[in-house]
Amino acid sequence: MWEKWMRRALELAALAEGRTSPNPLVGALVLDQTGRLVGEGFHSRAGEPHAEVGALAQAGEAARGGTLVVTLEPCCHHGRTPPCSEAVIRAGIARVVVALKDPDPRVAGGGIAQLRQAGVEVIADVLREAAEEQNHAFLHRLKTGRPWGVLKWAMSLDGRTALPNGLSQWISGPPARAWVHRLRAGCDAVVVGGGTVRADDPLLTSRGQRLPEPLRVVLSRSLDLPEKARLWDVDPAPTVVAHGPEAAGRSLVCGPERLPLEECEPKALMQALANRGCNRVLWECGPKLAAIALRQGCIQEVAAVVAPKLMGGMAARTPLGDLGLQRMEDVPTGMLQHPIGIGDDWLMRFRLRACIDFNR
Amino acid sequence: MWEKWMRRALELAALAEGRTSPNPLVGALVLDQTGRLVGEGFHSRAGEPHAEVGALAQAGEAARGGTLVVTLEPCCHHGRTPPCSEAVIRAGIARVVVALKDPDPRVAGGGIAQLRQAGVEVIADVLREAAEEQNHAFLHRLKTGRPWGVLKWAMSLDGRTALPNGLSQWISGPPARAWVHRLRAGCDAVVVGGGTVRADDPLLTSRGQRLPEPLRVVLSRSLDLPEKARLWDVDPAPTVVAHGPEAAGRSLVCGPERLPLEECEPKALMQALANRGCNRVLWECGPKLAAIALRQGCIQEVAAVVAPKLMGGMAARTPLGDLGLQRMEDVPTGMLQHPIGIGDDWLMRFRLRACIDFNR
Repeated sequence: MWEKWMRRALELAALAEGRTSPNPLVGALVLDQTGRLVGEGFHSRAGEPHAEVGALAQAGEAARGGTLVVTLEPCCHHGRTPPCSEAVIRAGIARVVVALKDPDPRVAGGGIAQLRQAGVEVIADVLREAAEEQNHAFLHRLKTGRPWGVLKWAMSLDGRTALPNGLSQWISGPPARAWVHRLRAGCDAVVVGGGTVRADDPLLTSRGQRLPEPLRVVLSRSLDLPEKARLWDVDPAPTVVAHGPEAAGRSLVCGPERLPLEECEPKALMQALANRGCNRVLWECGPKLAAIALRQGCIQEVAAVVAPKLMGGMAARTPLGDLGLQRMEDVPTGMLQHPIGIGDDWLMRFRLRACIDFNR
Repeated sequence: MWEKWMRRALELAALAEGRTSPNPLVGALVLDQTGRLVGEGFHSRAGEPHAEVGALAQAGEAARGGTLVVTLEPCCHHGRTPPCSEAVIRAGIARVVVALKDPDPRVAGGGIAQLRQAGVEVIADVLREAAEEQNHAFLHRLKTGRPWGVLKWAMSLDGRTALPNGLSQWISGPPARAWVHRLRAGCDAVVVGGGTVRADDPLLTSRGQRLPEPLRVVLSRSLDLPEKARLWDVDPAPTVVAHGPEAAGRSLVCGPERLPLEECEPKALMQALANRGCNRVLWECGPKLAAIALRQGCIQEVAAVVAPKLMGGMAARTPLGDLGLQRMEDVPTGMLQHPIGIGDDWLMRFRLRACIDFNR
């Protein structure tokens, strides 16, 4: 019977998609003693009240003896906001229905234990898998210390991302390119290499669909970057240039922030981005950097736009550089979701099987 | 009101899919004077009776004063079987409903004219587009003198058809490979180059789903072919080795038939295959031959199986060799149909826009 209300709580949580990092998405609702809906809330962004607080405030006195349905275990620690478990108890809630235990080590079951100790009935694991799916990026970061990586490319049906002479604008149609802006809006950062800046001079924003815009990141070994680039104008969105110690002494163009890494590798960049609160990072780089990011476990998902075109060319650019694979059994596999038509193109989303080990 | 019956006639025609070449698919049915279905027929293979004849025979005397619904204009010429227009008149049919005028220059409206002259009412163009679609391969051959070409490949999501070291077995899963057997069953011939024989030693049959099996064709400039290959055993299916005049003096392994061409080019091969009665030819060749076939207008359709894998590799084989394109505006486009899931893989069917001119 709680599934129906939990589904509603998940819908509430989804209202803030792409805006809560480093926090997870959370939705909550309150039913009074008779089972009537009396309050709804969701976590809108880090620093703002938690979902339970909004729902309880809306319910007011009607919460007493009622049920709180919440997608994530109420927190029991003082963070930027006071612990929710105490607010729940204080509101006189008799029963809490939870989808997902909070994997944050500061909570990890402590919220549920505190509620039970106070005599509140707790029903856990209701629509747990759906809640895990909704917060897969957040959960991945907590588990691995790195953001969830999405690799995006547009290609012709024959797997080309440029003509042999390097031309690539445009492979996909305007609706698919607009979809990429929406994809960016769901990410906390967008990464390219220096080569993409030089070749395409991209803007890399969500075109205002996410405010603030995702962080634009250039990973550059050499800092050999063009003097002028749309990314250096940080009015539309912030830009950082990440580099390793070998470029520490080199100067940087005006505008972007500098992000020194211990080594100029995707892995180190992803750790630095996790430290800045990124849950989900989009890679829009060329094939060589994409292959390195994949080999270093920085890619969990691929979003490939397939255009109804044949570009050909033995020397033409393709989505992925060398992965060092010698046997078909070692090829990374995963799950291709049902393709979605966008204009004349097809979006294919692919989720890599976890725990791919390139170093076998 | 005739659409419903024409749809049934198209269904009847489809029963012989892949088996009527060089003839088209044709289905027919007879309604008696009161509109009751009294006969059905379809053309099962070249040399066998036409669809109308079967339907009229089944209807017998009930055809008198009735309606014949047929997907293709009744023929008016003596071919391997006597003209159907005469049989229709003789049976006392009062009305003929036709989807498609026969583009065969020996008919081309003559059948309809003959019927009208005999006082039979003729309603034409009912579900014409569906009938054109059903016989697109036959219509293409009549229009161009060449069979409809389908290029098939299996690739990873990143557009690779082999690992950098050349390994490629298997990219797609068993259900997709079984689907390829079905695809072959709908074709009159399957073409590979010498390189594919050397690298993969393929069998290229429909595994008995089409009898006789499609003609297996090796296009070889040099006749530098392996001594042993599964294709040389012509018990399961016939094999021909096509070559140009430069290899005329060279000897050939035992088993396959020799098919000398004026030049060793896909275009010349397709003309020769049209002369042998092929309406639809499947290309299962490597990237270089595929690119030449495409440039020479021998490919109308692509069937790409996309596997949930990432294979990578700058040097890895990709589906299509160089097309000599310099501008994105010149890239061949077309229509990507709704992908179909086959096991873990996705089938993407692509139809090229007609009249692509690579020589602009």
